Amino acid sequence: MAGDLTDPMGPNALREERSKVEFDVEAMKVVWAGGVEEKNIQDRIKTLVANDPVFDKKSRPGLDHKTLVKLSMKKAAHAFKLFQEQNMTEHEATLVRYYVDEPGFADLHWGMFIPAIKGQGTEEQQKKWLPLAQKMSIIGCYAQTELGHGSNVQGLETEAVFDPSADEFVLHSPSLTSTKWWPGGLGKASTHAVVYARLITDGKDYGVHAFIAQIRSLEDHHPLPGVTVGDIGVKFSNGGYNTMDNGLLRFDHVRIPRENLLMRLATVTKEGKYVKSGYPKQLGYGAMVSVRAHIINDASDFLSRAVTIATRYSAVRRQFGGGDGKPEIQVIDYKSQQSRLFPILASSYAFRFVGEWMTTLYDDVMARLQVNDFTTLPEVHACTAGLKSICTSYTAKSIEECRILCGGHGYLCSSGLPELYGAYVPSCTYEGDNTILLFQVARYLIKSLSQVGGGKNPTGTAAYLGNIRRLATENCRVKQGAEWLNYQTVLEAFQARAARLSGACALKLNKAPDLEAAFEEYSTDMGEAAQAHCQVIIVDKFAEKMKSEFPGKGTKDILEVLFFVYSLDLITRHAAEFLSTGYLTSEQLALAKDQLRACFRKVRPNAVGLVDAFGHTDHYLGSILGRYDGDVYPNLYKAAWEEPLNDTVVAEGYEPYLRPILKHQLRQSKL
Amino acid sequence: MAGDLTDPMGPNALREERSKVEFDVEAMKVVWAGGVEEKNIQDRIKTLVANDPVFDKKSRPGLDHKTLVKLSMKKAAHAFKLFQEQNMTEHEATLVRYYVDEPGFADLHWGMFIPAIKGQGTEEQQKKWLPLAQKMSIIGCYAQTELGHGSNVQGLETEAVFDPSADEFVLHSPSLTSTKWWPGGLGKASTHAVVYARLITDGKDYGVHAFIAQIRSLEDHHPLPGVTVGDIGVKFSNGGYNTMDNGLLRFDHVRIPRENLLMRLATVTKEGKYVKSGYPKQLGYGAMVSVRAHIINDASDFLSRAVTIATRYSAVRRQFGGGDGKPEIQVIDYKSQQSRLFPILASSYAFRFVGEWMTTLYDDVMARLQVNDFTTLPEVHACTAGLKSICTSYTAKSIEECRILCGGHGYLCSSGLPELYGAYVPSCTYEGDNTILLFQVARYLIKSLSQVGGGKNPTGTAAYLGNIRRLATENCRVKQGAEWLNYQTVLEAFQARAARLSGACALKLNKAPDLEAAFEEYSTDMGEAAQAHCQVIIVDKFAEKMKSEFPGKGTKDILEVLFFVYSLDLITRHAAEFLSTGYLTSEQLALAKDQLRACFRKVRPNAVGLVDAFGHTDHYLGSILGRYDGDVYPNLYKAAWEEPLNDTVVAEGYEPYLRPILKHQLRQSKL
Repeated sequence: MAGDLTDPMGPNALREERSKVEFDVEAMKVVWAGGVEEKNIQDRIKTLVANDPVFDKKSRPGLDHKTLVKLSMKKAAHAFKLFQEQNMTEHEATLVRYYVDEPGFADLHWGMFIPAIKGQGTEEQQKKWLPLAQKMSIIGCYAQTELGHGSNVQGLETEAVFDPSADEFVLHSPSLTSTKWWPGGLGKASTHAVVYARLITDGKDYGVHAFIAQIRSLEDHHPLPGVTVGDIGVKFSNGGYNTMDNGLLRFDHVRIPRENLLMRLATVTKEGKYVKSGYPKQLGYGAMVSVRAHIINDASDFLSRAVTIATRYSAVRRQFGGGDGKPEIQVIDYKSQQSRLFPILASSYAFRFVGEWMTTLYDDVMARLQVNDFTTLPEVHACTAGLKSICTSYTAKSIEECRILCGGHGYLCSSGLPELYGAYVPSCTYEGDNTILLFQVARYLIKSLSQVGGGKNPTGTAAYLGNIRRLATENCRVKQGAEWLNYQTVLEAFQARAARLSGACALKLNKAPDLEAAFEEYSTDMGEAAQAHCQVIIVDKFAEKMKSEFPGKGTKDILEVLFFVYSLDLITRHAAEFLSTGYLTSEQLALAKDQLRACFRKVRPNAVGLVDAFGHTDHYLGSILGRYDGDVYPNLYKAAWEEPLNDTVVAEGYEPYLRPILKHQLRQSKL
Repeated sequence: MAGDLTDPMGPNALREERSKVEFDVEAMKVVWAGGVEEKNIQDRIKTLVANDPVFDKKSRPGLDHKTLVKLSMKKAAHAFKLFQEQNMTEHEATLVRYYVDEPGFADLHWGMFIPAIKGQGTEEQQKKWLPLAQKMSIIGCYAQTELGHGSNVQGLETEAVFDPSADEFVLHSPSLTSTKWWPGGLGKASTHAVVYARLITDGKDYGVHAFIAQIRSLEDHHPLPGVTVGDIGVKFSNGGYNTMDNGLLRFDHVRIPRENLLMRLATVTKEGKYVKSGYPKQLGYGAMVSVRAHIINDASDFLSRAVTIATRYSAVRRQFGGGDGKPEIQVIDYKSQQSRLFPILASSYAFRFVGEWMTTLYDDVMARLQVNDFTTLPEVHACTAGLKSICTSYTAKSIEECRILCGGHGYLCSSGLPELYGAYVPSCTYEGDNTILLFQVARYLIKSLSQVGGGKNPTGTAAYLGNIRRLATENCRVKQGAEWLNYQTVLEAFQARAARLSGACALKLNKAPDLEAAFEEYSTDMGEAAQAHCQVIIVDKFAEKMKSEFPGKGTKDILEVLFFVYSLDLITRHAAEFLSTGYLTSEQLALAKDQLRACFRKVRPNAVGLVDAFGHTDHYLGSILGRYDGDVYPNLYKAAWEEPLNDTVVAEGYEPYLRPILKHQLRQSKL
């Protein structure tokens, strides 16, 4: 091969970036991880995974679905072996799955099947099923969604008709659209499923309940009689979620014992009588808060990976300028790049802190549930639904933005970004479609406001709505740019905009003869109000976090800069709402923009340090553009030669197709 | 298998939709195609392609890169055979490639290699190379981009040093970053390339020029000595662009004859003297306009496919509501769905009309160039650059939006949307990075405004800037909602906002000591001004189109509705700019929103008709969700069983991995 195939520019650039960082990166790693001890455990596990050849994922984007599913089963088996051999704690085992970074049946087994039994099974049922599941003597999945029914759980069609003569339920799929569709791990791996079906006894439909059904033989893994089960096919993007066997499932009058109804909330007697247990349904809400806290932490994790790749490569990549022997300008020095990249960087931290807070919220909710205090549930429900919605939507969008910020090479799978996007984007749909969740928040806001008039002030994250009279009348007082760099000023702006938008919605609904029709008619406004409310929460929790102590030199200062990048960028992007509600003038908005640009200048020397603080290994990032050492181009070149198409010098298509074209022999050739 | 696997709901829904349409769909098809004759040709070719089994593309998303490239070679050979057998015109052949809908080496051969020779070769060179290329005795590609240099063409590193003693140029790749990287068709197919390299003669670097280089043997397709060539690997998403062999190329002192320099603009004599030909460089601009017109038409085509899928499936899909034996509500009836879907539908038409106008612009430019009139070039350059940027960005984003609007099933490749997105999104980068193009527009706007002061008014699409004094001072006069439904009112609003944003940018730059630094500092504002200007053009051309006659009942009425959907939606989405420039009050904005919602109600019964008018075949759409007959669910179910993972009842991973887990034999098993 011709010439020198090294390129020291990239590594030099990152070395220089790191020498300029103004804060203690090691201390920031502790902040990001949530404590020294947690950081140590994470470091140990992520290194273990990165160094284990079974967990290699380099070739993943080039493999087909069938191969990917097989390899993910191998990784799951290897991981389970490690858990046992190393006698890992549950937390450590979870971290292994996390850093293996490959969606697979085990996620559903541990993350949905087991929690469903814990949440909806009686103690007796838990005693029976949990040991089997925890030893993986059975593999379970969570079969809720149907071909024709996603968000509308109450519309599920699968039937479970009780037959008292046999003391059994008869599971049946009465229509094509009742086919279970999407459940992860169902397609090829699971032996059991928690199946959501309409409980029908004595001719009466009691609505959707959860049942445990065995679907495959424990001897030879063949589907049981009456069970039709398979994989639903290829999904968006390379690798990513195609390691998962999302499945379809149909029942043709399959019989399961009566005891397989998960009976914590309700039972059916031998005689076929439906009996509610009296166990408060609300006790299940704790699990929901916990799941959503996980989702927010995932959002910050995915976002931090994408922005690590884009930030490092923006420092390595050069374009235009230079001349006279000087190198071209680093892309990260362009303001247009900074204005798109740095808010994503700031959002990673913002989401991490709000995720951290949600963990404390979970503890609070659980403590209240223990003493039958359900008063905070509506607020908690709305707040977690909304945060799930806006954090996952923003993260998906911003992963794609990071890919675009890497220029053409971001389109190569070796950049890691196409796969990251493909694997992340379903988060916007599962565990509640993001659009629908925002409408739930809007309904909560409208209801809360209607109660304020009656003197009943909302609590928790919605408490600020109690001040709606003041928030709706007092406008922003900023006169000079620097006044924007104040936590209270920023927070008030977000509260005022959210309160005014909610208030405007409430007014429209008040005037309408048909509330539901009006809600539908103004759904765009409702969505905006809900989003504004959720941004109040994130800004508030970030500001609250800033009141705490931070270890290490400069960490607090740079986080403060990130707070203002996060909040002032949001003000800029949602400027129409701040202006149209009359809270801000154009001049105040212009001042906010100036301050935002000034903050970008402060982030600039620290950008690489801020992504280094996420502590992602090269294995976990899976990106040549985002390599820690910055040695991008030699490795892109090397990776190209690992493409199977390059295994032969002359393409397989040459003899049958290209040669007949070039030699004018197409008429004779068979195609 | 259990139960009835049909589902007449979908077909019934679309039948009913079609019965409600208020305009003449067949007439609209003629409008969309651009004339009766053109529609007839298109219909003939698209049917030919759809019915030819070689062009089947159903399995594409599941295949690996190597297989995809081989199959695309097969399709190319088959297509070329058809061209010859059926003695097709160039236009028909282009349409075949279009409807085959598979990126491949032939696109670059016909679309870049041949045009480069036509544009940059002398008549003698054209006489030599064009017949070879047109008979495909050689296959060519366009090797410009390098590993380290994309947008900055002047920074390319590949060298062509003239050696007078041999009358040859010596092509050489002096560094790793000089490796040619990305050219389509280069990786595995091409025998020749137009190579962009620095012309160096007598020790002097004359900058980047185009050369023809043979890279593979015409006998056995092996790379020629000194040539290193291969594929760069897997790209974003399934199928899509992975049918293309994007390549890398390095030269190690490869010699080509002096005559292989494309010499229309400049020659090098035998003695090594560099001589400009005197041929005006500007004559090349016509080609640029033509390429960009194609890109805009592609944008409307991709957008129309995505919105066809999302619209039909939104009519088929039902969610919530219903009860009492009534079916659930069609998703397309939700306002939140309409407010996201219908503007995309309207944009498809808007882009189609502006693309149509660009074709007339091309004729105008060519006529002027013939008589050495270069006066309109800066305006044409800015306008086409800007339109390319905003139309491709919007299209890419909206394909993804359409996928999300299809709910979970949009994530399945059988929806067609993941592949459409993956195949389209590179348009945002190639032929000019969209961000950089907008900055070029901004520079043009600033320059134009500086000349307005001196009495020199801009022409063409920028002519309105000549009225900046009026536009900057007279605010919107709308007092009642219905006043928004006026072409002039809408156009004035867009012009005023664009002029004010440009004017504000010019002011900032005027005040700055360093113009370049200020441009960089305010790049976000520059980008906004440029985008606003381009939206003026699209709104203007749409309004102009509405002055023409339209065939068929109701076509003009519904297009008028789409005009207001397009423009009022943009006003809503860019409300901050209309408000902050003082042109609109919050009340006027609210009135625009009301009118927009009213327009949605008028679109609703016509939505399916409006996408039917695009005339896409099921083959071309490649989407189960977007099937013409609406028979979605049975076909999703059927497609799942074609997934190779379902070829075996028990997964391949069961014996080696799952069984040892389930049977607690992991310790003994080798993984």
